[in-house]
Amino acid sequence: MSDLMFKVVTVEEAKKSLEPFIKQLNRQKESVPIEKACGRYTSQNITVGEDVPGFSRSTMDGFAVNSVDTFGASAAMPAYLEVAGEVKMGEEATLELSPGEAMQIATGGMLPPGADAVIMIEDTEWLDDSTIGVLKPVAPGENVVRKGEDISQGEILITENHCLRPQDLGALAAVGIDKVTVWKPLNIGIISTGNELVSPEEQIRPGMIRDINSYTLYGLVQEAGGNPSLYGIVKDDFRELKERVEEALQDNDIVLLSGGSSVGTRDHTLRVLQEMEGFQILFHGISVKPGKPAITAAGNGKLVFGLPGHPVSAMVAFKVLVEPVITGQLQNKQKLNFVKATITRSLSSTPGREDHVRVKLIFKEGQLFAEPVLGKSALINTMVKSHGEIVIPLGEEGVGAGEEVTVELSN
Amino acid sequence: MSDLMFKVVTVEEAKKSLEPFIKQLNRQKESVPIEKACGRYTSQNITVGEDVPGFSRSTMDGFAVNSVDTFGASAAMPAYLEVAGEVKMGEEATLELSPGEAMQIATGGMLPPGADAVIMIEDTEWLDDSTIGVLKPVAPGENVVRKGEDISQGEILITENHCLRPQDLGALAAVGIDKVTVWKPLNIGIISTGNELVSPEEQIRPGMIRDINSYTLYGLVQEAGGNPSLYGIVKDDFRELKERVEEALQDNDIVLLSGGSSVGTRDHTLRVLQEMEGFQILFHGISVKPGKPAITAAGNGKLVFGLPGHPVSAMVAFKVLVEPVITGQLQNKQKLNFVKATITRSLSSTPGREDHVRVKLIFKEGQLFAEPVLGKSALINTMVKSHGEIVIPLGEEGVGAGEEVTVELSN
Repeated sequence: MSDLMFKVVTVEEAKKSLEPFIKQLNRQKESVPIEKACGRYTSQNITVGEDVPGFSRSTMDGFAVNSVDTFGASAAMPAYLEVAGEVKMGEEATLELSPGEAMQIATGGMLPPGADAVIMIEDTEWLDDSTIGVLKPVAPGENVVRKGEDISQGEILITENHCLRPQDLGALAAVGIDKVTVWKPLNIGIISTGNELVSPEEQIRPGMIRDINSYTLYGLVQEAGGNPSLYGIVKDDFRELKERVEEALQDNDIVLLSGGSSVGTRDHTLRVLQEMEGFQILFHGISVKPGKPAITAAGNGKLVFGLPGHPVSAMVAFKVLVEPVITGQLQNKQKLNFVKATITRSLSSTPGREDHVRVKLIFKEGQLFAEPVLGKSALINTMVKSHGEIVIPLGEEGVGAGEEVTVELSN
Repeated sequence: MSDLMFKVVTVEEAKKSLEPFIKQLNRQKESVPIEKACGRYTSQNITVGEDVPGFSRSTMDGFAVNSVDTFGASAAMPAYLEVAGEVKMGEEATLELSPGEAMQIATGGMLPPGADAVIMIEDTEWLDDSTIGVLKPVAPGENVVRKGEDISQGEILITENHCLRPQDLGALAAVGIDKVTVWKPLNIGIISTGNELVSPEEQIRPGMIRDINSYTLYGLVQEAGGNPSLYGIVKDDFRELKERVEEALQDNDIVLLSGGSSVGTRDHTLRVLQEMEGFQILFHGISVKPGKPAITAAGNGKLVFGLPGHPVSAMVAFKVLVEPVITGQLQNKQKLNFVKATITRSLSSTPGREDHVRVKLIFKEGQLFAEPVLGKSALINTMVKSHGEIVIPLGEEGVGAGEEVTVELSN
């Protein structure tokens, strides 16, 4: 181990020290057609330039009426109205309704001037070619969406840094916005380190293991909305590692190193980060299990994360530290992708450490159970077999079998 | 309305009638590099060709030992072992350990022949240059991941039709698989219909509204893993609509029509589907609110869905009918993206109909509440303002304020 202070911080402290450097990341904006914007993050508030609907609109097939003409109407005592014409779909209703008149209208049709409600066709009867009987009264505004009732001009429709969903694209279309300004994905370079690593397409020899982290991190970066690039495997060589990090920093905003698990690799990573021109080490280790060895350095508007070598630890450290940086959601966003379940066995945790335990969800007799997927953190299969994880917070000593836990889903 | 029987079916019946036609869709496979496969669906089971790890491996920094040599060791009475050498990271450990010997090993190092456990460096002391004292015993297998313990050769690692997550990419890399065979996205053509529709970039005139559904459907298709293409807006004209549907069917596996809300449009859609060569209408309406008008036709290995014109209804009908077809998950998959919440007001539902109600989630005093986002189903803003929906099933009459409900999240 290096003689440098091993400065372990809590997740909260880590985020606090990252905050000023996240603002220095060179986030670019770009304008994209709305249909290409699903999953992208808005770079500004979006204000509405027109009312939706732009005119009062019928929500039923029937007759546009002046509601006062229907007051007191019943099947026994219908109100008689003159049918003055028909509103054509997609056309402006210009003909004004006079008292005692009605106009045929279909769902979506524009309410003519003078009308304030729509009576459903089922509640009327034709008396002759141009007269209807109204069999029940309608209130003002009934079966009508008023101009601007859905979205009104000047309203903030979508706030900054919102991840656009299909319905949001629809809402943008509704207000006549066909292009939207979103953040360009941050470029993220990924480097794996360690003498023992071989890439998946290479022949494996005894003593070697395959590079897993390049691929889990690639997927995680994509899911977070970043643009990942692979920079391959670097052996335990200080000079080679420094050159590769510098190469990756040229084209990327963030570089992720994931350490081989050997002492040598850890030392090289630390030394490289210490010697990077203009960089400072923010912290060295977070109080999270698994995931503890996570060195972070910042400088020149860029960030370098040295993540653990164990695949599960690397994923946890990514989720805790890197994902919030990529999405720009450093403050704890209200997380919604979780379920409540009953834990099937007791788990103990060391106070002062945040424990992340992977679980498999099981439906049994109408109840949801979370079964811890135990096994060493190096095992990739624990990740494949699990549906998500539970977090035992800093201050707690564990959970007891049968207790309710919150499972954060990993899909 | 047309005189054709308005054949309304339940969601279950709809899925049953779709099943044989889903099998006829022309799903293609393709091989992609694993790093490009996140979010894609596997087209076959993936069987493992090599053990992971490929050799027994240390999980700690320390000494590889034969565990029997440490039995009975204590701080007061250490076991003395000769240090026969060091296992180099990434290299094969060929030197065999003799009784009474230990070998230096780092985390991830290969266990040498003759060793069956690793003693942590903290539990030893150097006595001289080549001798250590072992201060506590280790059990056989302690601090070791055995060959094949993570993933063993011949095991099915990932099943068919699994949506690949970052950890799955890592697991594929771990077993030396650098390319994976996945389903090609189905091509989905999207057409909006109605005289009253204008696209978002056009000038709007009174009586017209903007085409919303093209964009919500585009996003929904992408989220489901399909490849969407827009075919624009067709006015209420039978011939034009038929031509556009035929054009879209040439390049797509599925065509989505979303009807303007006018009676004329509904009639045209029905007639076009009736007259398509080789097609049959499977059902005409599903007992879901909102979403009821949803005509479905199948033929020539393709499917055409006529979805409702109201944006919220179109989204619900898509989620219920189209999404399971695109993902190939027609049978109710165990849904995991939901949260439990307390409903803030009572909702009534007509038995015999599945009601989908959009809700906004609110955290208050440590509890999660679901507040129904009411308003007419045509309002796009109800979708933007909501976090998800609750479903009141066919047989139930509603939910009471204060009851616990399950909210399916729309992100």
